[in-house]
Amino acid sequence: MPLDAYLEGNRERHLSELFELLRIPSVSTDPERKADVAAAAEFIAQALRDAGLEAQLHPTARHPVVVGRSPEVPGAPTVLIYGHYDVQPAEPLDLWETPPFEPTVIGGDVRARGASDDKGQVYAHVKGVEALAAVDGALPLNVRFVVEGEEEIGSPNLRPFLEEHAQALAADVVVISDGAMLAPDTPTLTYGLKGLAYLEVSVRTAGRDLHSGAYGGVVPNPINALAGMLARLKDDDGRVSVPGFYDAVVPLADEERNRMAAAPFDEAAFRADAGVSATPGEAGYSLIERLWARPTLDCNGIWGGFQGEGAKTVIPAEAGAKVSCRLVPGQDPDDVSDKLAAYLEHLAPEGVEVTVTRLHGGRPASTPLDARSVRAAAQALRGTFGREPVFARSGGTIPVVADFQELLGCEVVLVGLGLEDDRAHAPNEKFAVRDYLRGIATSARLLRALAAPQA
Amino acid sequence: MPLDAYLEGNRERHLSELFELLRIPSVSTDPERKADVAAAAEFIAQALRDAGLEAQLHPTARHPVVVGRSPEVPGAPTVLIYGHYDVQPAEPLDLWETPPFEPTVIGGDVRARGASDDKGQVYAHVKGVEALAAVDGALPLNVRFVVEGEEEIGSPNLRPFLEEHAQALAADVVVISDGAMLAPDTPTLTYGLKGLAYLEVSVRTAGRDLHSGAYGGVVPNPINALAGMLARLKDDDGRVSVPGFYDAVVPLADEERNRMAAAPFDEAAFRADAGVSATPGEAGYSLIERLWARPTLDCNGIWGGFQGEGAKTVIPAEAGAKVSCRLVPGQDPDDVSDKLAAYLEHLAPEGVEVTVTRLHGGRPASTPLDARSVRAAAQALRGTFGREPVFARSGGTIPVVADFQELLGCEVVLVGLGLEDDRAHAPNEKFAVRDYLRGIATSARLLRALAAPQA
Repeated sequence: MPLDAYLEGNRERHLSELFELLRIPSVSTDPERKADVAAAAEFIAQALRDAGLEAQLHPTARHPVVVGRSPEVPGAPTVLIYGHYDVQPAEPLDLWETPPFEPTVIGGDVRARGASDDKGQVYAHVKGVEALAAVDGALPLNVRFVVEGEEEIGSPNLRPFLEEHAQALAADVVVISDGAMLAPDTPTLTYGLKGLAYLEVSVRTAGRDLHSGAYGGVVPNPINALAGMLARLKDDDGRVSVPGFYDAVVPLADEERNRMAAAPFDEAAFRADAGVSATPGEAGYSLIERLWARPTLDCNGIWGGFQGEGAKTVIPAEAGAKVSCRLVPGQDPDDVSDKLAAYLEHLAPEGVEVTVTRLHGGRPASTPLDARSVRAAAQALRGTFGREPVFARSGGTIPVVADFQELLGCEVVLVGLGLEDDRAHAPNEKFAVRDYLRGIATSARLLRALAAPQA
Repeated sequence: MPLDAYLEGNRERHLSELFELLRIPSVSTDPERKADVAAAAEFIAQALRDAGLEAQLHPTARHPVVVGRSPEVPGAPTVLIYGHYDVQPAEPLDLWETPPFEPTVIGGDVRARGASDDKGQVYAHVKGVEALAAVDGALPLNVRFVVEGEEEIGSPNLRPFLEEHAQALAADVVVISDGAMLAPDTPTLTYGLKGLAYLEVSVRTAGRDLHSGAYGGVVPNPINALAGMLARLKDDDGRVSVPGFYDAVVPLADEERNRMAAAPFDEAAFRADAGVSATPGEAGYSLIERLWARPTLDCNGIWGGFQGEGAKTVIPAEAGAKVSCRLVPGQDPDDVSDKLAAYLEHLAPEGVEVTVTRLHGGRPASTPLDARSVRAAAQALRGTFGREPVFARSGGTIPVVADFQELLGCEVVLVGLGLEDDRAHAPNEKFAVRDYLRGIATSARLLRALAAPQA
């Protein structure tokens, strides 16, 4: 039976099974939902078994990791599909038009918490594997699933799990569907992610808060000092001024710039959605190049002194800010953190004591455009959508991607099956029925393409 | 009887009466203390009557103003003595070594809430008037008292009260004792106060908070923008960069600069007390000149984005700061606020919407060094201390001083009777017995000096 016929014939079952999964309120952050989270893990494991894989729950300190293994195909490549079965809380409940854990189809969309993020997307792969095994009688390559239950709480136990099972999980390619196409009906293949270096900077100037009448004009002011330091982190051209910041950046190849220029990106819609009237940034690069492929620096938070209503004439003793950089291939989070910390300390005026704390880091990740995984994913998307996919990079950071690259030594490709407006983390989350079904087809095609002998 | 003999003979009574006043917990901010506040007002009124004045309680929306009037001396000058009988809360109570409303003498100091701020200081004037009337048989000039019960909650009803009674309270000189000498045993006469212009600046860049992975490098960041704007408010020489900021500043006369240079000011002790390692400020002016007589600009608060623990990769939609300037004679708070607001708006980068809110203003105030009040106060302090007083200005702002100048058209002179370390507003507030007694003597001498024919 051809794949398309199988998918067509099992369409209602594939949908009703997804609904069953969506009915389980597997909110990982909520201790009272622990049993529900476990039930969702077991549901995924059973679905994998039904598709012909071995499946096990690996307990962690909090929620289990579901691991699936297909029957061994010696000599064939190995693909690892990563996703997560936990969901964000549904609150605020009064903003939902339908119950968050009672999937409802409205206007061609499945409405439910987790429909797009990520139950619908990871389950599309489970069903894709099931379909391919059913149609071809057996899978043509080695398939591994790693479906975790702690993504929405920061995946605290995933890296240790991957470290422990690195050998058993060794793969050639990791496929992740936990995102969105660039636009509706626009097959999108993401081959690069930014990294992250996130610091907190604290400045202290005095032993205590001081009265501006008794000390104004003669003591250092930590807010003025911090503002001056932060203002010097970028120049008038929007370039980061931290010495050495760009040293390791891999320049954009012409082919990438050309592909980016051709990407269907609607800047007016982008501005309208964000509610911004301008899109300033690093001189010499287009918006899409800055968004996808140039390192950035942003203040994420700032505080100091009196924040209440009215006027308090205080010169505070301290102030602080969160500062983070998104990094591109070539840049190392520790190296950038060191340079940024040193520069902040260098910028401190007399009488200002600076403390920099490194809060978070993530390496950038990218897979070459001519890699097996990228070519196979493009072929699969072409097969499902009948058009050339967009080769995208992302300004975001998915630490697990860098973990997979580092620990399992594999290529990573991201195939977002949802849409930007799927309302992940928000009320009325949705996933188009059509996108779910196309996701199943794309998954099956991707496995076939990965198994095919390389040209 | 000579004044000194009278004071010596009534010393114990003057102290025990003050203790009675200090025992009344007249905490103006505490609704449960309303009756105590009223009792303190009545205590002051009765003390004024005992000294030979008429005294009345003028009710306000919250706590009454006590007004005292001496018998009319036609043709003689009129002095108005301002003070307050309300006190700060005593909390935290566990930090007090003696009960806050049970005055206790330890090491020559009266320990009690309000001992220095301001019951002890204003009561010294009540006793000074009593002493002079007793010694001379009558007062040589017209004395008015305005003793309010809302100073510690911002004097919300004082200005309307003064406006209503401007004619009845018209005076040549206002004397205020609600502060400190520059150093122990250092008679100090304050003839200038700074004004204040206090603004809040808000910046908005987007319709909502944005994810730094999805928007970093291409949208304006309100924290970075605000930091850049604030950083441009002063130049590298510590001068305020707001165009026109210094236009109306009355330059410091050589005589003032010389007096300031001679003031007994211990910079090392100042730094140690504030816990600062440097005293940066406007180039070309000494520390004491900057503190007393040069306009300043300080950020008093700042906020925006994520202030919690850890890392949140947000580009916030808005940020804000409180910015205030201390002003010197010549500068007008409204004018400076306008200029600062316009400059902040001018500094806003593309895509950044700026809103400036004027929060608070106060005019600077000063009395010429050769004014009757200044010369009389200097003479009185010389008489009590046997040494030349320091002629000080203050970096602080006392709105009521500018109100007196504006509404009653009079000179204002401040004679701080306490010490900087009297712990006003803090646990274990104190007032040296010696300073209280010297205050009574100085008050009586000041009235005599003001009544004397002018040279």
